[in-house]
Amino acid sequence: MKDAHALLHQLSQQPIDLTKPGVLNAHRVTSMCVEACGLKLLYGTERIDDRVIDALERLAVQGNALQQMEAMQAGEKVNRIIGFQSENRSALHTAMRDQFGHTHNGIEARLYAEKAARELQKLKGFLDRIEGKFIDLVQIGIGGSDLGPRALAIALEAYHRPHHRVHFLSNVDPDDAAQVLRHLDLTKTIVVVVSKSGTTLETLTNEEIVRARFAKKGLNPKEHFVSVTGETSPMDDPSRYLESFYMWDVVGGRYSATSMVGGVALGFCLGYQGFCEVLKGAHEMDLHARSTPVRSNLPLLNALFGIWNRNYLKIPTLAMIPYSQALLRFPAHLQQLDMESNGKRIDHYGHPMSIQTGPVVWGEVGTNGQHSFYQLIHQGTDPISLEFIGFKESQYGEDMQVAHTTSQEKLLANLFAQSIALATGQASDNPNRVFPGNRPNRMVLAKRLDPYTMGALLAYYEHKVVFQGFLWQINSFDQEGVQLGKVLATKILSHFSTQRTKEKAEPFPVAESYLRQLDS
Amino acid sequence: MKDAHALLHQLSQQPIDLTKPGVLNAHRVTSMCVEACGLKLLYGTERIDDRVIDALERLAVQGNALQQMEAMQAGEKVNRIIGFQSENRSALHTAMRDQFGHTHNGIEARLYAEKAARELQKLKGFLDRIEGKFIDLVQIGIGGSDLGPRALAIALEAYHRPHHRVHFLSNVDPDDAAQVLRHLDLTKTIVVVVSKSGTTLETLTNEEIVRARFAKKGLNPKEHFVSVTGETSPMDDPSRYLESFYMWDVVGGRYSATSMVGGVALGFCLGYQGFCEVLKGAHEMDLHARSTPVRSNLPLLNALFGIWNRNYLKIPTLAMIPYSQALLRFPAHLQQLDMESNGKRIDHYGHPMSIQTGPVVWGEVGTNGQHSFYQLIHQGTDPISLEFIGFKESQYGEDMQVAHTTSQEKLLANLFAQSIALATGQASDNPNRVFPGNRPNRMVLAKRLDPYTMGALLAYYEHKVVFQGFLWQINSFDQEGVQLGKVLATKILSHFSTQRTKEKAEPFPVAESYLRQLDS
Repeated sequence: MKDAHALLHQLSQQPIDLTKPGVLNAHRVTSMCVEACGLKLLYGTERIDDRVIDALERLAVQGNALQQMEAMQAGEKVNRIIGFQSENRSALHTAMRDQFGHTHNGIEARLYAEKAARELQKLKGFLDRIEGKFIDLVQIGIGGSDLGPRALAIALEAYHRPHHRVHFLSNVDPDDAAQVLRHLDLTKTIVVVVSKSGTTLETLTNEEIVRARFAKKGLNPKEHFVSVTGETSPMDDPSRYLESFYMWDVVGGRYSATSMVGGVALGFCLGYQGFCEVLKGAHEMDLHARSTPVRSNLPLLNALFGIWNRNYLKIPTLAMIPYSQALLRFPAHLQQLDMESNGKRIDHYGHPMSIQTGPVVWGEVGTNGQHSFYQLIHQGTDPISLEFIGFKESQYGEDMQVAHTTSQEKLLANLFAQSIALATGQASDNPNRVFPGNRPNRMVLAKRLDPYTMGALLAYYEHKVVFQGFLWQINSFDQEGVQLGKVLATKILSHFSTQRTKEKAEPFPVAESYLRQLDS
Repeated sequence: MKDAHALLHQLSQQPIDLTKPGVLNAHRVTSMCVEACGLKLLYGTERIDDRVIDALERLAVQGNALQQMEAMQAGEKVNRIIGFQSENRSALHTAMRDQFGHTHNGIEARLYAEKAARELQKLKGFLDRIEGKFIDLVQIGIGGSDLGPRALAIALEAYHRPHHRVHFLSNVDPDDAAQVLRHLDLTKTIVVVVSKSGTTLETLTNEEIVRARFAKKGLNPKEHFVSVTGETSPMDDPSRYLESFYMWDVVGGRYSATSMVGGVALGFCLGYQGFCEVLKGAHEMDLHARSTPVRSNLPLLNALFGIWNRNYLKIPTLAMIPYSQALLRFPAHLQQLDMESNGKRIDHYGHPMSIQTGPVVWGEVGTNGQHSFYQLIHQGTDPISLEFIGFKESQYGEDMQVAHTTSQEKLLANLFAQSIALATGQASDNPNRVFPGNRPNRMVLAKRLDPYTMGALLAYYEHKVVFQGFLWQINSFDQEGVQLGKVLATKILSHFSTQRTKEKAEPFPVAESYLRQLDS
């Protein structure tokens, strides 16, 4: 069997031209569609044809994509660089939601599914105990302890229980804390501090600031603070927290929204059952991802189209555009998920990559983006690839006909129009009205953005990213690239603290010249 | 004199290697710094040396960058494609803030500065008249009528007057309106509807939805609605609006934050004087941009570094990272400003470009980004360029020492550490701990994010984008690339409305196949 890479490379020399009359037709749109867990993936506007799909399927088979997904969900040590010191552990975010009959029999998978079940029971009891006591919840965390839970809480605001608001405090910028705390009644506020290690600089600093604010009001922080942390971390401390929920090394930050990292805040605002619906959607997508053949497997197909666009059509960025105001912060979560997972330059043997890995992922909600950066997508000098998300129904159902159509219809008409326009382009005698087209894009459609669908969408993108990592043979679960900045920041901090501690800071002339710029 | 382009191309074959020990030293950081209007531009971490700066200066001189800036501010017709139908008009956003002695003598510039002065007087009187009557202001607008004003209103929240809140409604998604209107007391709410043409689909639709809400409450919308629109547009109508403020074709949407497009909302929350401070900062940057030689001209240097990274070092994207929570939405504004202005494929004679124009611009605030996408920036396979923004002081001044340093110090330490780490990288025996470095980045530092500084920052980026457009010889002021999607969306909408109007929609088989996917 011919090497899939060579075949794809050959096919990429002359990809299908979507701007040719009749190429993007109704049959193409209808037939290039697969469905699972309430999500429909439409990919007729990608620059692919049957030969490309065959070759991508071959790539997935030769790369053992499905076997690797099965191994990950079973608990094999997929987070490793072979031959070098590395985290060397499994990646079991799927076990967090394997709570509907414990479907997976892998020993590690079962172990962590059971641990997660205990935390869920703890959460249920905890939510019952605090019922009616708190109106505002502030989650302190950064990165994975912030972006995923925040995106989901915002996305599901239409489903929040009355008098259950959530807020997020992440940045070490003191103005973030000042702003978040400004309008809260602390007597009715619960604070969830999230840090796996219990040592994250930003999180610990903000925790101290918020604790001091409670103390100043004469309130006992212990009655208001909850931790989500590793067992045995410094934050697993009943003398300081009303309750501690556990997370584990096998669940990476950016994959942790369905663990207690997202669970406490989402359970608070959606109710326990609402959070379980999110888990159910994610779990069913997990099952789909590990057991469905390539051509019907939504996240795997998505991963393959991404690889085709990235490695063969050489497109460096991916715009994520949900046509849904509720998904306002979902692109920021997907940006972290994708770029922190697959922004890697070595394979899992430690060899430098010879092809490109993860693209720059960016985006805003539609239709807003149309009035902003779409100019460049349509008529810039670099091709861009796009993923859209759309829903048949709005969340609130508060809509109105203006000029014979509802707002939801206007939203969908714009989504479909952009997908078509980007693919087909337009010829014109006026060079400024020429649209080159052939901007590859795909779309996920669902009925409505509810907790179940949100869970399915979340897992759909997690598995897309993971499948791409498997096929690139990289480690999608570590993040060594964040370490150097941390080390240098600590060194520079000692230059700030030296005047207070009287200790001498290690010389760091370049950094000192930055510090002098602040004062001159 | 040798052609600057050829020289830069030659120099780019061996750019300075910032990873070599001693190259990034204290002298380099200190000497590669220019200052104006309270902003300091530090560029020692760009991959440039004296030869590159000389060649970039030559590029600016050969491209008549300063003369073109002067011509733009004077009111010459810079918004045109020569030889083809185009908007064919001037770009006079700078006239909006030329309100401190009318410094510019160009006839058009003077004309629009005087028009703007009349609107400012109108605003002053209006704000006095409504004083105490309203607590919440909702601005309905999209694109330039949303992103800039929103970014500035959020950035300056620390300076808002008590009981003067602002909200923005942009998306045609009905959930956006439902969400924004949910918690407002309409009796105390003023609505500002912004559309130059008075015909923007999203804006008119949302206006109708909000008007209906007022009517349902028994309130007279006319007592609550204000328009910002072109003279003679359908929205310049005293029978429907309490007041109408004017904007003109010579001020493009993405450059309109200092016109009444931003003025009404910012005047409301900051007070009239506060908005004038924003104008003053922008105006002083306008003067600086048009009258300062290349090597001391902040926006022009920024533009040149961008061109160096884009066209010679071939870096496709630019990350904009403010280390300031208040600048949360400023990257989204800069994304529009840059990508809609310079995402162009033809020059101003209508010829296809032979080099790349505007990059993909994306970003989030620091330190949050460090826990998200910095992995890819440090260790991905594509190089990324970055612009940072930092402030010596926080806005609220509510800070606390934790482990001997304040949060503001931690924020700055991280900013400086990242700038250095990205440039120098790190060697290691463990391939996963290798940081290749040479990620070019530059930084703007200021004392504090106040209204004046916000105005200066806004104009700094406007002029950077415009200078790049001048040097690429493209039209940075039109947006033909948004038209095709609008046309197709209108066609698709007729398929939604056909069941209600009984009129037959024009056949559009591809779109119809999308519509069927919604129902199957």
